[in-house]
Amino acid sequence: MKEKVKITEVGARDGLQNEKAFIPTNVKIEFIKKLIDASLSHIELTSFVKASSIPQLADASEVSAHFVRQSISQEFSCLTPNLQGYKSAIEHGYKEVAVFTAASNSFTKKNINKTIEESIQAFEDIFLEASKNNVKVRGYVSTIIACPYEGWIDPDKVLGVIDRLLDKGVYEVSLGETIGKAIPSQVEKLLNLILKKHPAKLFAGHFHDTYGMGIANTSKSLEMGLRSFDSSSGGLGGCPYAKGASGNLATEDLLYLLDTHGYETGVDLNKIVEASQYIESFLGRKLMSKSYQALLASKI
Amino acid sequence: MKEKVKITEVGARDGLQNEKAFIPTNVKIEFIKKLIDASLSHIELTSFVKASSIPQLADASEVSAHFVRQSISQEFSCLTPNLQGYKSAIEHGYKEVAVFTAASNSFTKKNINKTIEESIQAFEDIFLEASKNNVKVRGYVSTIIACPYEGWIDPDKVLGVIDRLLDKGVYEVSLGETIGKAIPSQVEKLLNLILKKHPAKLFAGHFHDTYGMGIANTSKSLEMGLRSFDSSSGGLGGCPYAKGASGNLATEDLLYLLDTHGYETGVDLNKIVEASQYIESFLGRKLMSKSYQALLASKI
Repeated sequence: MKEKVKITEVGARDGLQNEKAFIPTNVKIEFIKKLIDASLSHIELTSFVKASSIPQLADASEVSAHFVRQSISQEFSCLTPNLQGYKSAIEHGYKEVAVFTAASNSFTKKNINKTIEESIQAFEDIFLEASKNNVKVRGYVSTIIACPYEGWIDPDKVLGVIDRLLDKGVYEVSLGETIGKAIPSQVEKLLNLILKKHPAKLFAGHFHDTYGMGIANTSKSLEMGLRSFDSSSGGLGGCPYAKGASGNLATEDLLYLLDTHGYETGVDLNKIVEASQYIESFLGRKLMSKSYQALLASKI
Repeated sequence: MKEKVKITEVGARDGLQNEKAFIPTNVKIEFIKKLIDASLSHIELTSFVKASSIPQLADASEVSAHFVRQSISQEFSCLTPNLQGYKSAIEHGYKEVAVFTAASNSFTKKNINKTIEESIQAFEDIFLEASKNNVKVRGYVSTIIACPYEGWIDPDKVLGVIDRLLDKGVYEVSLGETIGKAIPSQVEKLLNLILKKHPAKLFAGHFHDTYGMGIANTSKSLEMGLRSFDSSSGGLGGCPYAKGASGNLATEDLLYLLDTHGYETGVDLNKIVEASQYIESFLGRKLMSKSYQALLASKI
């Protein structure tokens, strides 16, 4: 029997939030329908943030209303930066939310004007409510290897943040390599430290592809036992610290690796290509996933 | 002291030969000057083939005349498919040539209308001349993991071809992952077999990035002891079997990995970016190296 790997599609949230031009809500909905059609079972739909901070996701309510309560086989999640966001999520019927912190104080300070510890404290109410509501909480830790302000991050610092999130009750920690600067030997060193203390099943790899290292870091993480990864259709998105650079690891590249290795994901690679083609036509630029481009090319 | 890694820049040959529109000779020369300025010490300049088979490289003589005899610190090489090509190379003063075969009979048949064994026999004269002339011969083995006609290739078959080339006297075997379909676990399996029999210093990794796996396969090869890699500036080139797909592993992505890891290459990454920018302006499309794009973006 094939070993399973979980894919969390973050294109509609992490991908789109880095796209400058507003994507109309009906286009987002059509895009997500295509992701569902590709049999992705874990999709992060949107983020309940102030519309002023991420205008791209100002339609979180409309997008959520379209999918969450209608879901039969998909597990949808959304980012909830605070209790207000959490309450909106619950009103829309989400059974899973994600909270966000980082391994660098400079990064949390610049992004949410809180220290790491203050950001975790601020989630206290979400964790309390979620345990009452039987809602799963996923925790993102950003800047696990490098921070745009502090440079390379001490792995012990990352482990400290992970410990705090697991203590609070997150069911999975998504290890965010936010600026795509990591290389496999650094990922190996960090995972060696983490996996001495915690089982691999508590973690997901969330790699960005800014310097083209996303799939190499993913491959190393797979080797070390991780079986859960975040990716975005076509490699949607970008990097706020290097405008014009690549975004998240592409779902197509991830699937190419997993399918070729013989892992089971349940996801249909050709239908992901169709979803990417659809959203690409609204972007005014080419999506940068190489497997996407190769598969498109071989179709012609 | 830092460990050294050798980079063979193949953009001017393997990269450009996959570009449809003819790049004027003076542009090629300026491009190569910029590669030299980036302190690349091993550059494959061109190929002495019939102009009708690869029109892009019909200016092999002009390009060679411009650089080879003037070389002080660079080691230039060129592809020589037969004795006639070898003689042209020697006339231009080359001290290194490269011969080409594959691990798949269907591939050599389609490309040069010879079986693998016939292709190696055909090099006999080149090997004889080269040993008299004190010229180094490098051997390419294409389709080491996958063939566009035969599918996955048996590692034992690859080892057999390597043995033949080493017997003939090549100083380095460049392991060509021609269609970019390999993933790290396959590279590991193949290298495990090869390195049981031969020392790692006899091999170079030559990975294509068609499905975005180039850097992951390179990283795995580094881990297993390889210290020599072929790459092309900006990821120049494409794939004849998937038009519109990516080309060779990009020199920028390779350097990003090596520099970050702390290997010594002697090559100036920022100057490679300048060379890529220059050649890109003659291509009518964007070069697909992600490190190239990120470094360009962070310059702005």
